[in-house]
Amino acid sequence: MRRSLAIALATSVIGLPAFADDLRDSALATFKPLPSTVPAVAENPITPEKIELGKALFFDPRLSASGVFSCASCHNLATGGDDNMETSIGHGWQKGPRNAPTALNAVLNEAQFWDGRAEDLKAQAKGPVQAGVEMANTPENVVVTLKSMPAYTEWFAAAFPGEADPVTFDNMARAIEAFEATLITPAPFDAWLNGDDAALSDDAKAGLALFIDKGCSACHSGVNVGGHGYYPFGLVEKPGAEVLPAGDKGRFKVTETASDEYVFRAAPLRNIALTAPYFHSGKVWDLPVAVEIMAESQLGEALKPEETVQIVAFLDSLTGALPEITVPALPPETATTPRPTQKIE
Amino acid sequence: MRRSLAIALATSVIGLPAFADDLRDSALATFKPLPSTVPAVAENPITPEKIELGKALFFDPRLSASGVFSCASCHNLATGGDDNMETSIGHGWQKGPRNAPTALNAVLNEAQFWDGRAEDLKAQAKGPVQAGVEMANTPENVVVTLKSMPAYTEWFAAAFPGEADPVTFDNMARAIEAFEATLITPAPFDAWLNGDDAALSDDAKAGLALFIDKGCSACHSGVNVGGHGYYPFGLVEKPGAEVLPAGDKGRFKVTETASDEYVFRAAPLRNIALTAPYFHSGKVWDLPVAVEIMAESQLGEALKPEETVQIVAFLDSLTGALPEITVPALPPETATTPRPTQKIE
Repeated sequence: MRRSLAIALATSVIGLPAFADDLRDSALATFKPLPSTVPAVAENPITPEKIELGKALFFDPRLSASGVFSCASCHNLATGGDDNMETSIGHGWQKGPRNAPTALNAVLNEAQFWDGRAEDLKAQAKGPVQAGVEMANTPENVVVTLKSMPAYTEWFAAAFPGEADPVTFDNMARAIEAFEATLITPAPFDAWLNGDDAALSDDAKAGLALFIDKGCSACHSGVNVGGHGYYPFGLVEKPGAEVLPAGDKGRFKVTETASDEYVFRAAPLRNIALTAPYFHSGKVWDLPVAVEIMAESQLGEALKPEETVQIVAFLDSLTGALPEITVPALPPETATTPRPTQKIE
Repeated sequence: MRRSLAIALATSVIGLPAFADDLRDSALATFKPLPSTVPAVAENPITPEKIELGKALFFDPRLSASGVFSCASCHNLATGGDDNMETSIGHGWQKGPRNAPTALNAVLNEAQFWDGRAEDLKAQAKGPVQAGVEMANTPENVVVTLKSMPAYTEWFAAAFPGEADPVTFDNMARAIEAFEATLITPAPFDAWLNGDDAALSDDAKAGLALFIDKGCSACHSGVNVGGHGYYPFGLVEKPGAEVLPAGDKGRFKVTETASDEYVFRAAPLRNIALTAPYFHSGKVWDLPVAVEIMAESQLGEALKPEETVQIVAFLDSLTGALPEITVPALPPETATTPRPTQKIE
């Protein structure tokens, strides 16, 4: 209500429509609205059976050695697809090395993880399951666990028809990718890109204009407003060690190329208002502060307070609607299901 | 299909209808089908607003000091309302003292916890939030956390209309109780109690007859097939220390009465097939073994193998349908939200 009124006023006073069209043209050259259908993924045809299986697996804590953690523990769909922690807590109360990225819209990222070391979600999904500080499981134990429950055997057969031995670690990852492909969250920004002038406040539109003009969109562009391309954190000026710890050299670890030291994938910014704390280090809780750090370190810009407010208003317009996800009823363990172990190796 | 055929055969051969009616009369004198509406609870009128708020709280890991655990962590609605662990893992990877009971249908228990120390779910809900080995939070910190998020303030106002200061620890517990009251899981046994002869297999019916005749239903009765009344574990013969550890004296800790040593509330048996491992100690993973231990320790009976099979078939008929629960979209933290702490005090 208040929003429509503000637009109406702005329209009559400063002739917003022409500006809005210019801004939209410029935005559409840089960004893209979310699709209305489940995105296709490489070498993994998505079917309803695969999505349902993937949902069960995503929510199943028995993928972890301890039985404590599921994918949904650190990628909590109720809290923006992440865990609202500096870095995640995993097996044995160990702390992970980097802030958990959101699973929402992640299928549309060019690559996965902060350093892009997994080319897609089916490659990504296998990482945390095996990481000692996360789920601390092994592919062999996962397969034995899943095969011990007749319902899973049926679900894998339905999701991977014609395969002689469908219950595999790779198929687990494919099914999880299929479910994650449904986690698309259309936001006011999409409505606006699609032509609904009233979907963005004046502040959000001003923030969008700043986001483009100042150069933020040079890295944070495309359908996920980021999530593709690698850039040094501290292009103009390195932030302090509390935000950019010296020990984590980012993509250097993947490519072993000196120029990739402290290089990270540009963070996808959809639902950013839901996913504090920020940066790979998870050291900054406040979105306006994160925006200011980015402006200084990447662009050498000291934002005026009202500019920060407007950019944050634009970022707020990237908060989307969660799809309806019902809690799955998982099959019970059987006599042959490996028992959870909380021991730390 | 197979089930109806079996019934038809049995009917023509041994005149099952009369037997079924006798058994049903006898069962209805001991058990009760689940209600088709949300049960009323004492001093806590249930409204849609309170249920919605309670669902958000139930799923919110920010009720724990660490941000790792929500109610749904140990009472996982995807896995039978419990966590499939001997005893739960909580703050700092500490192990809880007793097996987590299911939250499903718990509203219909006479009292809560294995020793009945909470008279209802609104009393129960306050326990784990404060327990050092579980969520390790304080009522004060919970209230500050909830008040820091404007959406919660609105939701509490809608759920507790007319209250000057609705965001309280007690109201948190009331809302959680209201949500939990919706966790009712009608099962084949209910359909059969309600008159559907085909809802139970012959084995399940024979198991039900044994369950009554042998005396199991002397303790495990009522709508939850247990969940009310306190009985010594090992009435006839104490099970071994691995199942009944000497250190946990059960209800004795609540009443400090010598006769309450090793006394526990009769476990409610709905969804028991989903909630291994069994007993307050969580030491037995296999349902048939648990049934045999009970028969020996409580009734002095050595069950024949086929009797165990039939009783387990009856217990399987208590596995119900999970209500449709959609993952809530929780509000984001703000600048005044207390940050999670993983420190162990």
